[in-house]
Amino acid sequence: MIKKTFRFGTAIVDYYFAGSFAQLKELADVMTTVLLTDEHVFAAHERRFKGWNSIVLKPGEAYKIQATVDSVIGRLVELGADRKWTIVGVGGGVITDLAGYIAAIYLRGIRCGFVPTTLLALVDASIGGKNGIDVGPYKNMVGTIRQPAFLLHDMTLLQSLPEAEWRNGFAEIIKHAAIRDAKMFRELEVGSVDSYRKKKAALADLVQRNALLKTKVVLADEFEGGERRLLNFGHTLGHALENQYELSHGEAISIGMAFAAKLSQQRTAFRSAARLVGLLDRYGLPTLATYNKDKVLPVLSRDKKKEGASVHFVLLERIGKALVEPIPLNELSDLL
Amino acid sequence: MIKKTFRFGTAIVDYYFAGSFAQLKELADVMTTVLLTDEHVFAAHERRFKGWNSIVLKPGEAYKIQATVDSVIGRLVELGADRKWTIVGVGGGVITDLAGYIAAIYLRGIRCGFVPTTLLALVDASIGGKNGIDVGPYKNMVGTIRQPAFLLHDMTLLQSLPEAEWRNGFAEIIKHAAIRDAKMFRELEVGSVDSYRKKKAALADLVQRNALLKTKVVLADEFEGGERRLLNFGHTLGHALENQYELSHGEAISIGMAFAAKLSQQRTAFRSAARLVGLLDRYGLPTLATYNKDKVLPVLSRDKKKEGASVHFVLLERIGKALVEPIPLNELSDLL
Repeated sequence: MIKKTFRFGTAIVDYYFAGSFAQLKELADVMTTVLLTDEHVFAAHERRFKGWNSIVLKPGEAYKIQATVDSVIGRLVELGADRKWTIVGVGGGVITDLAGYIAAIYLRGIRCGFVPTTLLALVDASIGGKNGIDVGPYKNMVGTIRQPAFLLHDMTLLQSLPEAEWRNGFAEIIKHAAIRDAKMFRELEVGSVDSYRKKKAALADLVQRNALLKTKVVLADEFEGGERRLLNFGHTLGHALENQYELSHGEAISIGMAFAAKLSQQRTAFRSAARLVGLLDRYGLPTLATYNKDKVLPVLSRDKKKEGASVHFVLLERIGKALVEPIPLNELSDLL
Repeated sequence: MIKKTFRFGTAIVDYYFAGSFAQLKELADVMTTVLLTDEHVFAAHERRFKGWNSIVLKPGEAYKIQATVDSVIGRLVELGADRKWTIVGVGGGVITDLAGYIAAIYLRGIRCGFVPTTLLALVDASIGGKNGIDVGPYKNMVGTIRQPAFLLHDMTLLQSLPEAEWRNGFAEIIKHAAIRDAKMFRELEVGSVDSYRKKKAALADLVQRNALLKTKVVLADEFEGGERRLLNFGHTLGHALENQYELSHGEAISIGMAFAAKLSQQRTAFRSAARLVGLLDRYGLPTLATYNKDKVLPVLSRDKKKEGASVHFVLLERIGKALVEPIPLNELSDLL
């Protein structure tokens, strides 16, 4: 277990790389901790939950809603959880978002940690303190920004990960490479989902680099005044598509990245849209979609990244370098 | 309008004393602000709401619940409120708690201000950043600690305040005096609700002193590790009684203070329980109640201030000086 500690404002977050689930006992007291997970994770790793208080939720983004928060809070009251308790989210992004949000509001905030079980959560969702729930078609409409006390990485948890979830994770990894790391982009161009799944050391290295890349961006700008916005590359259109069509998060932002890359060619000096589309395709991610503009535009106009009549869109200047440009909603309507 | 600025951690809060509602236009943009209020306040001051986006809630603690939060968030989405918007709570403690909480979680946090319309909110509820909602019988079980951007005092709003609300406010004023200000305690002993209502200057001075007293306590300890706990004097038993019996907040904490004063005589050098009871009585507040211990104890045992098997109880050492003592739940059971 390799420990790295980061300070976000006044919050201190301990990252434990190359750890194991069993070491969770060193980070949280069994008697005053509750593990929040979903049925898939619980079924795949039931043995590891023995001895812990657990709350097992139905899986999926459809349950990242207030009704789930209400039921978990009811269970915490039943368990007698007080201010000294810890909530640990064991799961993918839906679980870490819910666990982080509930820990932020229960008793006005209790301790929280994450054990990510998906590639997406390892490299992205568990990092940076953003949490939240969806409201109708609007993703993360309600939430807070609050750092967990710790992150524990156990790469063996990925063994039960379904194929589609690998692609979801690589969508965010490709995003990181596209906005900040041209060298990683080139490495990904010669790799594949299969090659990383086979080479454990290469995968562990890739995960750690991505976790640290995101951490650095967040450290520079926890409350999203500038730099952190770059992480929204592909997410503006992606979020608008995700909840309205049957797309996974990775598929949705892949389509969003391809769209943003083409938009970048029109509005910046960017000339590598085809290279990005090629890489997304290499990792089994879609880059084109037919969608109903009249369904997507009203959601875009409610996007959190909207300010006034413009949406802050992340564009690429070159592979490894991104920028934010406000695009008026009426122009966007023509571009879609 | 007198402006005083305080810094709580990284948050900056502007206090505007001796202001007027009309000056709200200088603090928040009419187009991108929504006023949150209740039917009583709206009916009493309808003219002042002209030109502002307003959300008018049903009045009372019974509506300080998640269902209200859900409906307000639905309205904010309808209004197209984005991250540049401001929510202003215009009302008593229920409204400022709701406005502060909703502003803390909507889009992961938007700007928020308060215009307190009750004596209680002026001297207590609007100050310190604690917000939240009730869950079943448990008060403020869910919430955050997050400072508003501004507080605007308009003393003319008190003209419509019902008699019982004056008593609620004086309960917190007496609490402040008991834990921190023996001189104010002596002044209160020669005053009365009526005398303060008649002397506007004396009332304005009392309000400002109490707002600053609470502010100083919170500044010393925003996240309630020590000093801030003293503000819970009378609130441990008070909260347990308030939602289970038909008591106002002031009545409940008055009974709680009288109980804590007697407990103080048993456990500290405190000898002035009769003096405190006399002062509460002078301001029309109850100091004795018959209650069912078996109904109250389970709620006490879920109190936010509970840690392990003890409740952190605030006791008096003398008038103007308080301390916190952990009291085991089983001992408390005998004392009730």
